[in-house]
Amino acid sequence: MSVVLAGNSYGKSKVRLTKVSRKPDRHELAEWDVAIQLQGDFAPAYIMGDNRQVIATDTMKNTVYALAADLELTSPEAFARTLGAHFLSRYLQVESLDVEIRSARWQRVDVSGEPSPHAFIGGGPEERVGLLSQSRERLSLQGGLDRLLILKTADSAWRDFHRDEFRALPDVDDRILATELTANWRYSEGAIDHDAVFAAIRQTLIETFAGHKSLGAQHTLHAMGAAVLEQCSAIDEIELIMPNRHRIPFDLRPFQRENRNEIFIATDEPHGLISGILRRSSAPHE
Amino acid sequence: MSVVLAGNSYGKSKVRLTKVSRKPDRHELAEWDVAIQLQGDFAPAYIMGDNRQVIATDTMKNTVYALAADLELTSPEAFARTLGAHFLSRYLQVESLDVEIRSARWQRVDVSGEPSPHAFIGGGPEERVGLLSQSRERLSLQGGLDRLLILKTADSAWRDFHRDEFRALPDVDDRILATELTANWRYSEGAIDHDAVFAAIRQTLIETFAGHKSLGAQHTLHAMGAAVLEQCSAIDEIELIMPNRHRIPFDLRPFQRENRNEIFIATDEPHGLISGILRRSSAPHE
Amino acid sequence: MSVVLAGNSYGKSKVRLTKVSRKPDRHELAEWDVAIQLQGDFAPAYIMGDNRQVIATDTMKNTVYALAADLELTSPEAFARTLGAHFLSRYLQVESLDVEIRSARWQRVDVSGEPSPHAFIGGGPEERVGLLSQSRERLSLQGGLDRLLILKTADSAWRDFHRDEFRALPDVDDRILATELTANWRYSEGAIDHDAVFAAIRQTLIETFAGHKSLGAQHTLHAMGAAVLEQCSAIDEIELIMPNRHRIPFDLRPFQRENRNEIFIATDEPHGLISGILRRSSAPHE
Amino acid sequence: MSVVLAGNSYGKSKVRLTKVSRKPDRHELAEWDVAIQLQGDFAPAYIMGDNRQVIATDTMKNTVYALAADLELTSPEAFARTLGAHFLSRYLQVESLDVEIRSARWQRVDVSGEPSPHAFIGGGPEERVGLLSQSRERLSLQGGLDRLLILKTADSAWRDFHRDEFRALPDVDDRILATELTANWRYSEGAIDHDAVFAAIRQTLIETFAGHKSLGAQHTLHAMGAAVLEQCSAIDEIELIMPNRHRIPFDLRPFQRENRNEIFIATDEPHGLISGILRRSSAPHE
Repeated sequence: MSVVLAGNSYGKSKVRLTKVSRKPDRHELAEWDVAIQLQGDFAPAYIMGDNRQVIATDTMKNTVYALAADLELTSPEAFARTLGAHFLSRYLQVESLDVEIRSARWQRVDVSGEPSPHAFIGGGPEERVGLLSQSRERLSLQGGLDRLLILKTADSAWRDFHRDEFRALPDVDDRILATELTANWRYSEGAIDHDAVFAAIRQTLIETFAGHKSLGAQHTLHAMGAAVLEQCSAIDEIELIMPNRHRIPFDLRPFQRENRNEIFIATDEPHGLISGILRRSSAPHE
Repeated sequence: MSVVLAGNSYGKSKVRLTKVSRKPDRHELAEWDVAIQLQGDFAPAYIMGDNRQVIATDTMKNTVYALAADLELTSPEAFARTLGAHFLSRYLQVESLDVEIRSARWQRVDVSGEPSPHAFIGGGPEERVGLLSQSRERLSLQGGLDRLLILKTADSAWRDFHRDEFRALPDVDDRILATELTANWRYSEGAIDHDAVFAAIRQTLIETFAGHKSLGAQHTLHAMGAAVLEQCSAIDEIELIMPNRHRIPFDLRPFQRENRNEIFIATDEPHGLISGILRRSSAPHE
Repeated sequence: MSVVLAGNSYGKSKVRLTKVSRKPDRHELAEWDVAIQLQGDFAPAYIMGDNRQVIATDTMKNTVYALAADLELTSPEAFARTLGAHFLSRYLQVESLDVEIRSARWQRVDVSGEPSPHAFIGGGPEERVGLLSQSRERLSLQGGLDRLLILKTADSAWRDFHRDEFRALPDVDDRILATELTANWRYSEGAIDHDAVFAAIRQTLIETFAGHKSLGAQHTLHAMGAAVLEQCSAIDEIELIMPNRHRIPFDLRPFQRENRNEIFIATDEPHGLISGILRRSSAPHE
Repeated sequence: MSVVLAGNSYGKSKVRLTKVSRKPDRHELAEWDVAIQLQGDFAPAYIMGDNRQVIATDTMKNTVYALAADLELTSPEAFARTLGAHFLSRYLQVESLDVEIRSARWQRVDVSGEPSPHAFIGGGPEERVGLLSQSRERLSLQGGLDRLLILKTADSAWRDFHRDEFRALPDVDDRILATELTANWRYSEGAIDHDAVFAAIRQTLIETFAGHKSLGAQHTLHAMGAAVLEQCSAIDEIELIMPNRHRIPFDLRPFQRENRNEIFIATDEPHGLISGILRRSSAPHE
């Protein structure tokens, strides 16, 4: 028998980078988690422990901090491209790589109604994400956001779904819809202001969620993705992942009370998990 | 040998209550985690399994949902008092109890610049807290907040601390100060608008943190607590707990670069943990 | 412009199933997390809120519990196949599905040296995993384990890796190697005793890790995968994912002490992340 | 108005210490989380930023590693005492301190049926705990364990508890009892082998849980605590905290099936939380 190394990848995860850019009138703060994975000519390290081609994951970490010192950090997408170019150009043994950058949502504190030049408040679990997948032949750049909690208490029905012996849920016209949204989008060709696109997509996702007359999580997911594609020409594909964080009506009847659609149990599990990929179609016949 | 049951307490934790109050022009949303602990005449259940006096923890949970349906939810503090009165008045076997209510920070979504009547965005890990400890003789009511992330990039020194063989840290005049703040306060006697007091304390804590010329986390903690006591007559004691979420300068010298106080490693552990209790002193000689 | 729904999938996650099988002499305990994702003819629900083809995720949950009641639970793999066959045969609108079952590692308690018939102790974060991906044309069944913590204090070197300006790590001949192992394997054709194969693979992974003269995490990963393929003819491919949970020597020199390779800082982040896929090669020329 | 600093404490948490003791025939592994809190003459640091008396939390961390290098680590309790003596004797400004040491449950790997000299497998979330609270006048030393998951499928009833309008639970004679146990005990005076006492208490807790004819979680908690006090003369008080990790029978009747007490939903929340303190009574009249 013989054994083949059919795939390999290695890198550094959770490189926690903080950069303070000390502008004359204010400080800019970036707090990013950086992860890098390299693929390439590393089989000798796996097969026989020959590490001469291996860039240590500690070296990758050092590179992140050093390049962050050298350059202005504009967007996660731009820094991911910087890292991609660095590793591919410097190390011939690297054939392809993945870079993931997650940016924490620090927001400037208001002091006496004015934004502070140097104090920030944490923005919750929500993260902005930049994803690069690059080889010597191709480059794919994605933006995204993760763990955006949104909830609506009106305009959400769930009815007329398939009925059989395992269905126990009744139709409902007015439920709570809550999710912890993940979105990833693929950029079109051309020059792009990633910060502006991110802000526009995030606001479109939130506003569409808020305003949609939902007939189901799938229905709202589609409306959100379609609205983004309609309003942001800078992207041509978006994936949305929406865990359905159910709020279940509490049955008050055993306690001689009526639940006027007001009292719910918040649950984390089990949870529905709804996803979809929407793509711009240039040809009317697709 | 004989064994004594020297203390006992039991109850229900993580009762996850969602209430939607459907006002004509908008919905109000409360999402609270409720925990109740009862102490009293329950030794027979422990010692011999005689459960006749025991209110099941499931019954406590049902009570939370039923009372939440009966009443308008104004503040965590008020609902904690409602629960306290209910359990003490209804069950003679209850001698004292603790109620803890943690409120998630949902914020109204802006749609086209206007607050949505029914859509909300999650406010991060930060929670508002109401704490009641009550017996048939006494009542202690506390408010608080937990997991408020704040960070400042200026006006924070840490120097001239004790020097001995185990000290390795240099003096530093300009570091990042970051914490995940917990605050608990005790209310004075009299009628109190808990929502207004909470908002005022939270803003005072944040603004004082932002504006303080810090000589250390202890120093800033004291300034924050003192500012709250000075500005909020409705409370007479406050405890602040400030884990020091260190941002450590990354040493770029091995890579032939200078760190101009810009590049840091964000860390969660180990972490400093600083706490203090400040109290209003009515007498000048205290 | 038009928008295309280029992909969709939905289902239920974290269905937490407990089954007690009450045998005459002992109880068997299974605690599984089940996740199901369906793909198929669900575009109308996304595009226009037409839910008639949609099997509610609550219905999926009910199905898990009902089928678990009907059948003896032998292995995660077997129950995943049962669920796959159920959804594909019953619902013509389902074109393909994924089932993931994670099994907690409860172990029987010893009482006076004998295994208890009905008491169990939790086995840590480690989970056994069964993965099914099935369509009307193909079926892929995988076994695996996740979050197996293993650590060795000897026979682990890390040296002679690529040297350049960003390398700061020295060569080291005797470090701690620690990981939280994830393994996934693909079964060969034919009848398979999944429980026996799981036990054999797990033990082979652990023993190979313990005994290997490691020249790097990659090297040990390869040895572990190769040992599994050599000893278990029931599988023909295995993927191993090994985060490198670094234990960093603490520098005692500032404190006038020598670290005789004894004192380390345990860290979770940043961490190396090493992965590889090994495959049985039937043909010498592959 | 004047403000008083009514209490203060500060220290370092999550000091993650790994020590490998390289014995001739085998390696011993300790992985401990150490937390230290100091109280004393630190008001000037709080009030005016005068840090001269403040031992930096980084210095505390260095001390942990340095003393761990100097000494053989026997038990968490013994090392907590070492740290307590160090800080109180070296720093006159320290009036009292708390030390908490949490020890991970690494277990030796079996290789070909023999325990490995140098390879270990993680033992789950369970931790052994040592707690010291010491001032210049008094010393309190506690041992404990945390997050021990135990579950039994027989000999557990829950019936005849208080009945009123908010009770919805039926009596049940045969339920699953599951908990994530926390135990803390106070040592008697005199020389104590902390490792042996820990092992005896842990086994007594598990065996009593397994064998008890439970009429409720309170009842089993008392039996467990009493058994420990009866069998371990080295301790004179024990506190047990038992969250009730409910396994709720799944109602199969809507699906034309009977649940023969076999199929349950595992839940984390809400959860009962039962605690009690048992103490040895030397005098029959106490």
